[in-house]
Amino acid sequence: MRRVVCPGSFDPVTNGHLDIIGRAALLYDEVIVVVGANQAKLGLFTVDERVAMLREAAGGIANVRVGTFRGLLVDYCREQGVSAIVKGLRAVSDFEYEMEMAQMNYRLAGLETLFMTANPQYSFLRASRVKEIATYGGDVSSLVPESVLGRLQDRLASP
Amino acid sequence: MRRVVCPGSFDPVTNGHLDIIGRAALLYDEVIVVVGANQAKLGLFTVDERVAMLREAAGGIANVRVGTFRGLLVDYCREQGVSAIVKGLRAVSDFEYEMEMAQMNYRLAGLETLFMTANPQYSFLRASRVKEIATYGGDVSSLVPESVLGRLQDRLASP
Amino acid sequence: MRRVVCPGSFDPVTNGHLDIIGRAALLYDEVIVVVGANQAKLGLFTVDERVAMLREAAGGIANVRVGTFRGLLVDYCREQGVSAIVKGLRAVSDFEYEMEMAQMNYRLAGLETLFMTANPQYSFLRASRVKEIATYGGDVSSLVPESVLGRLQDRLASP
Amino acid sequence: MRRVVCPGSFDPVTNGHLDIIGRAALLYDEVIVVVGANQAKLGLFTVDERVAMLREAAGGIANVRVGTFRGLLVDYCREQGVSAIVKGLRAVSDFEYEMEMAQMNYRLAGLETLFMTANPQYSFLRASRVKEIATYGGDVSSLVPESVLGRLQDRLASP
Amino acid sequence: MRRVVCPGSFDPVTNGHLDIIGRAALLYDEVIVVVGANQAKLGLFTVDERVAMLREAAGGIANVRVGTFRGLLVDYCREQGVSAIVKGLRAVSDFEYEMEMAQMNYRLAGLETLFMTANPQYSFLRASRVKEIATYGGDVSSLVPESVLGRLQDRLASP
Amino acid sequence: MRRVVCPGSFDPVTNGHLDIIGRAALLYDEVIVVVGANQAKLGLFTVDERVAMLREAAGGIANVRVGTFRGLLVDYCREQGVSAIVKGLRAVSDFEYEMEMAQMNYRLAGLETLFMTANPQYSFLRASRVKEIATYGGDVSSLVPESVLGRLQDRLASP
Repeated sequence: MRRVVCPGSFDPVTNGHLDIIGRAALLYDEVIVVVGANQAKLGLFTVDERVAMLREAAGGIANVRVGTFRGLLVDYCREQGVSAIVKGLRAVSDFEYEMEMAQMNYRLAGLETLFMTANPQYSFLRASRVKEIATYGGDVSSLVPESVLGRLQDRLASP
Repeated sequence: MRRVVCPGSFDPVTNGHLDIIGRAALLYDEVIVVVGANQAKLGLFTVDERVAMLREAAGGIANVRVGTFRGLLVDYCREQGVSAIVKGLRAVSDFEYEMEMAQMNYRLAGLETLFMTANPQYSFLRASRVKEIATYGGDVSSLVPESVLGRLQDRLASP
Repeated sequence: MRRVVCPGSFDPVTNGHLDIIGRAALLYDEVIVVVGANQAKLGLFTVDERVAMLREAAGGIANVRVGTFRGLLVDYCREQGVSAIVKGLRAVSDFEYEMEMAQMNYRLAGLETLFMTANPQYSFLRASRVKEIATYGGDVSSLVPESVLGRLQDRLASP
Repeated sequence: MRRVVCPGSFDPVTNGHLDIIGRAALLYDEVIVVVGANQAKLGLFTVDERVAMLREAAGGIANVRVGTFRGLLVDYCREQGVSAIVKGLRAVSDFEYEMEMAQMNYRLAGLETLFMTANPQYSFLRASRVKEIATYGGDVSSLVPESVLGRLQDRLASP
Repeated sequence: MRRVVCPGSFDPVTNGHLDIIGRAALLYDEVIVVVGANQAKLGLFTVDERVAMLREAAGGIANVRVGTFRGLLVDYCREQGVSAIVKGLRAVSDFEYEMEMAQMNYRLAGLETLFMTANPQYSFLRASRVKEIATYGGDVSSLVPESVLGRLQDRLASP
Repeated sequence: MRRVVCPGSFDPVTNGHLDIIGRAALLYDEVIVVVGANQAKLGLFTVDERVAMLREAAGGIANVRVGTFRGLLVDYCREQGVSAIVKGLRAVSDFEYEMEMAQMNYRLAGLETLFMTANPQYSFLRASRVKEIATYGGDVSSLVPESVLGRLQDRLASP
């Protein structure tokens, strides 16, 4: 059985993330989408909210489940019997950072990282930018799933 | 009539910015230099000070005017009848970030971005670096216009 | 009047080129698409064929015309009263090469280059790749205009 | 069953290639290493020689087999029931080229590409450089497998 | 006499830093390793602790000495009679930032910067990542010298 | 005594090369500028002509001498008692290629490479571009030394 993780902060999940998750689910037996909880307090949404949005958006895919981790990702992967990390790459600057992380995870625990390229139509999509646009009233309905859209408006509307 | 905007934080304007503004003014009928005011509190200078320094430095060019915006740049451009954003590019790392912004602005509102390359003699010039050098007593007189030089010394001298 | 050139080898024109040409035509009074003829013998199509394909594909846009040049682009632009070069950028590696060309053209003749970002859906599209795919029977009908599709099949079918 | 391909020109296979092949073999049920034969005449070794060297070097891994393809890789993958392409990435410049190829293959046939990062100790290793060093008598014994070393010396010694 | 500086924040020194320092010591008559103290309060270790760790790790090399500087590096170098700055480069993103700094230092004071490439086995090693791994109990014993290992555990264990 | 080499094809030497050579001569006891002769037949100028142009342009610097090498640069450096290779870097794409070469040379022979950043005013200058511009009658008098200018005109004028 080939089980992989898709780690991220998912604050919140975007259509770009969902594209990678859906494509990974076709390639592996099981995909665990994991929200990193080490620095969760810094986000717009709590870890529980992020998990809830991910479950609403991706939970319908049979071999996808959603979780969280604290500490080192390599430790989580060992416990869960995970073969590899799967990450989407959008840009060259992503790539260098991720290549370093991948080499470090391989050095620490022999854990492999497999990179998929972002769908070009989402190549300019970052969660941070979605939040910035939504903050100033821009229309992000084509950039995030419905589960996120409502919560984003609620959160940004509250004082 | 071809009206473009040159957006930025301009905290403060440098000779590299002025080079781009001057060259853009030769290519378009009107250039609006706009100071983004969304996160203005984080800067060394207030938005008003930045506008004042820009006006002193670039106000002498007939078809350049200086303004500010809050919210989304695409909304500001629609209100002002702007055809395109003009940005200077200095480096590859600039380029990726700016390409993503450009694609997002096009997606949000069909707004185009046109990139000009920095004059090589200013390719290493960033406002943040100018402030750092000035903080420690370095000579930045060839890097910023006179309107900035005095204010920079005043600001950094004050306790 | 703002007249710009879109230079290239266009061997053959792709949908990515056409996207840039069409968007440039909205931003400037006149767009001259010019096929560089210095090394024309190295291509799959003759310069005349390339011009013909461009005319069929882009000739319907009122303010676009198609030409050729030999020698230095800066000389051609001076003769034609051109304000600036317009180029599409797809990737970081494009950018460095093009930035150098732009700085050289500015140094040689004060000629500006304005860069537009490729539409993300064409970010992976290069004429050389289209030819390679077509050579091995791949379907390129969504990558090039109809004017090209037929000629490409004829050329690659001939012994 | 998860079957992937590792495509390349392998002219000749290096220790960097073997590292990726071996790691891929741990992650998938079957790995087909395929030598692209479209431009085989341009290489130092014939396609048959490249296959022979690969078989000697990687044939001992139970779930690795070696083949060749002509035409489009996406067609080959469809015929062979392949789920995905696996490629090693060494550097940023690799990445942009490969990202474009990956997006094109996805567009043409829905075929995914999964990237693994090169082992840092092989990050500077290219087959072209190995050949250049060997041509001038440099010691490449730590850069290629034994199956390659002898053939490389024979080939470069012959007039 | 050729005296160079290796500047950095060294919070803490890693095996990657030590590799560069040791190689620089073979190429120059004297190497001064200098800890930048401008923003020292932001680090995990005090400037004095960083200096102590560097001295324990690199002090055994005859022509290496360790110091600190406040203010502009170009001023420090002038005072110390330093010919050039020596920096290790690991990645493309490092390179752009460092190239800008180098060009600025040359402009400010005619001070040269010489770049060495990181040993590939340390290409993914950053002090910030070491601290993150250690925070969550990962094993960093192969990434930092012994002088750092103990202090890192003490610091992260304290409440 | 610190002796370094500045290797290149120098077909022909440009003002960018001369800038690096002159700055290197201030940092080291002796600088040997070496023309690589492995693929000399492919150039516009013969190796002897390139050496002659270099001697005319840089021969006036007391601690610079000009030579040629065939075979591996690491072998040449060992024979000449050279401590390190010195190279100028203009751009990110240069950097990746050069970093790989540097790591290979270190692996092969423990030979170090030191990189200097190009003077920004020459950042867009490549010998290949100079030749292209000169071929079409462009003015390159500010891009190459006088020793090159005459020969370039002669060579390109001859049938």
